[in-house]
Amino acid sequence: MGEFELIRRYFQPMAARLATPCLVLGPGDDCAIQRVPAGNDLVFSVDTLVEGVHFPEAYPSRILAWRALAAAASDLAAMGAHPVCFTLAMTLPEADEDWLSGFAEGLADAAANFGLALAGGDTTRGPLVLTIQVHGTVPEGRGLLRSGAEADDLVCVSGCLGDAGAALEYLTVSNPEDDVQSVLQRYHQPQPRLELGHQLIDVASSAIDISDGLKADLGHILAASGVGATIRAADIPVSSPLARLKGQQAVSYALHSGDDYELCVTLSPENWGRLPPNIRNQLTVIGVVEREPGLRIQGWQGAAGSNGFDHFRSMS
Amino acid sequence: MGEFELIRRYFQPMAARLATPCLVLGPGDDCAIQRVPAGNDLVFSVDTLVEGVHFPEAYPSRILAWRALAAAASDLAAMGAHPVCFTLAMTLPEADEDWLSGFAEGLADAAANFGLALAGGDTTRGPLVLTIQVHGTVPEGRGLLRSGAEADDLVCVSGCLGDAGAALEYLTVSNPEDDVQSVLQRYHQPQPRLELGHQLIDVASSAIDISDGLKADLGHILAASGVGATIRAADIPVSSPLARLKGQQAVSYALHSGDDYELCVTLSPENWGRLPPNIRNQLTVIGVVEREPGLRIQGWQGAAGSNGFDHFRSMS
Repeated sequence: MGEFELIRRYFQPMAARLATPCLVLGPGDDCAIQRVPAGNDLVFSVDTLVEGVHFPEAYPSRILAWRALAAAASDLAAMGAHPVCFTLAMTLPEADEDWLSGFAEGLADAAANFGLALAGGDTTRGPLVLTIQVHGTVPEGRGLLRSGAEADDLVCVSGCLGDAGAALEYLTVSNPEDDVQSVLQRYHQPQPRLELGHQLIDVASSAIDISDGLKADLGHILAASGVGATIRAADIPVSSPLARLKGQQAVSYALHSGDDYELCVTLSPENWGRLPPNIRNQLTVIGVVEREPGLRIQGWQGAAGSNGFDHFRSMS
Repeated sequence: MGEFELIRRYFQPMAARLATPCLVLGPGDDCAIQRVPAGNDLVFSVDTLVEGVHFPEAYPSRILAWRALAAAASDLAAMGAHPVCFTLAMTLPEADEDWLSGFAEGLADAAANFGLALAGGDTTRGPLVLTIQVHGTVPEGRGLLRSGAEADDLVCVSGCLGDAGAALEYLTVSNPEDDVQSVLQRYHQPQPRLELGHQLIDVASSAIDISDGLKADLGHILAASGVGATIRAADIPVSSPLARLKGQQAVSYALHSGDDYELCVTLSPENWGRLPPNIRNQLTVIGVVEREPGLRIQGWQGAAGSNGFDHFRSMS
C-alpha cells in the first residue's frame, strides 16, 4: 500500500466525518485552511510520541491513537482553548492493515470525543513515531498561561492524580481485578479536561496540564510566575485503588508520574469563592502560592531528585 | 543534557530572535498563540523528514535544518500564503552539541530568510525524525488550491527543474566542479518560492509546489481539477549543467524527482497576458490544460511507471 492509498483509505473518510465549518480546507491540498473567528486567537501545541519511550512496544494501535490525541488535546485544555482541529505526522515501519484500521478507529473515536477535526498530515515509512499538533481558539488575549500565579492564590488540581503512573506497573498483568482495571483505564484512555479548562478562563490566574507529574508541572507554573508554593501531600486527591497502596506510594505516583492529563491551576481565594458548584466539584485545593520561590510539600518524605519526566535524561 | 536544557540553550534564543507581533505567545507554555489578522485565513502544512528516507545518514545538520524548513515553507508558497511561524518536533538519538548547534544555526538562517518565527516544538530521544509545521495567512477565501485548473489554462513552472534530483547522483563527489556545485546547491539549499506564490493570488487558477517531481505534482493538480493537460518535454526549463546531460536525462530528472521546490501553476491566457514582466520572467509556459483527463508529454519517450516519490512504495 502506497502513501497516497493509505491516506485515501484510512484518513480521508475520517477527515470527512469529523469536518467542522472552521476548517475551510481539510487534507488533500498543499496546506489546510482554518478560519479563526474574529475576536479569537489561534492556540496550538505539538507533541511527539515515540515507541519504546512514550508507550510500550506492540502497544495496541487503537489505544495508542486515543492516548496520543488526548495528550495533545490536554495542552488545549490547559490554555482554556476551544478545540478545533489537528494534524497527524506519522512514521511507521510498515503499512499493516490491522494496525492501521485499529489506529484509525481509535483516532476517530478520540477526535469525535474531543471535538477535533482532522486537518492534514504526513505519513512516511520509518520507526514508529507520532507527532500530533492540535489547534484551538480562545477569546483574544484571554488564554490561560503558566505565568499568572500570584502570592496567596490557591493551588488546585482536577480529578485524581497518579493512576496513570501506577498503571505502568500493571500493564502486563493478565486478568486484572476491577481496581487495577480502573487504574489501567486512566492510562489507556485519558480524558483531557477541555470543558473544565474552558470554564476556567477569566477565573484561573495560571494553568498547566499534568503530563510530567504534579511536582514538575506545578514547578513550571511557579518558575514562569516567579513565585513559590506550599502544598500538603495529604490533600492531593488520589483514587480509592491508589489510596490503598502502602506508605506514600500513591503520593509518589501523583508527584512524579504524568499521563493523567489532569489540570493544575491557581486562582485567587475570591474567585474560588465565586466558582459555581459544578466547577468547584471538579477541583481540589492542595495548597497556596507564596512569594518565596520553590515548592514545599508538607507531609512528604519522599526521595529527592526525581523531578518529572525529562525525555533525554530518562533514557541516558 | 536534558530536554529542557536543550530547548533553553538552542531554541529559546532563536525564538526570541525571530519573534513577530503575530505570534502573541511563543515557546515555553502549554501552547503557542497566534493572532490571525481580521480578513485572513490561517494556512498550515506539516512535513516529516526521516533519516535514511528523505536525507542521507550523517547528512550535515546545518543543511538538514535549512532543507527541512524550506520543504515545509514551500507548501505555503504553493497556497500563496504569507509566512508567519512554525513548530519543530524532533526526535534525535543523542543530544550531540556539535550537531545541535549546526542544526540551530541552519534553522535560524532559514527561518530568517523565509520570514518564519519559531512558535514551539517538542524534542525527544529517538531515531532522527523531524516534523515541521508551518503557518501562514492568506486573505479569506483566496488561497491557491490545486483544484481550480480549467481547460485552456496555461501550465507554467517557476525556475529550472531537475537539479535537486540530479544532485543525488553527486552527493558523494569530492571536489566537485562548478557545474556540479551549482546543482548540489539546489539540493542542499532550496529556495521556496514564497514571494512568487503570494504574487500569484488572484492570478493563478491552481498551484502546487514540485516536491515529488513535475509528473506527479502536475498530476495532483489535474486530478483535483478534473482535467488533463499536454506539456512539451522540450519546453521544461532546465539549468545549463543539466542541459548538457545526454539524451533525455535532464527531462527525466525534471519529471520524476522532487526537492527543487519550484511551483507549478495554471492560469488563463488572459491572466498570463496581464502579468507584469517581473513575475512573468520567473515562469515558463510548458503546456496547456485540456478537458481530456490524463497528462500527455510531447517529445518524451521515457520509461513508464515512475510516478514521483511515494514513501511507502519507495522503500518496499
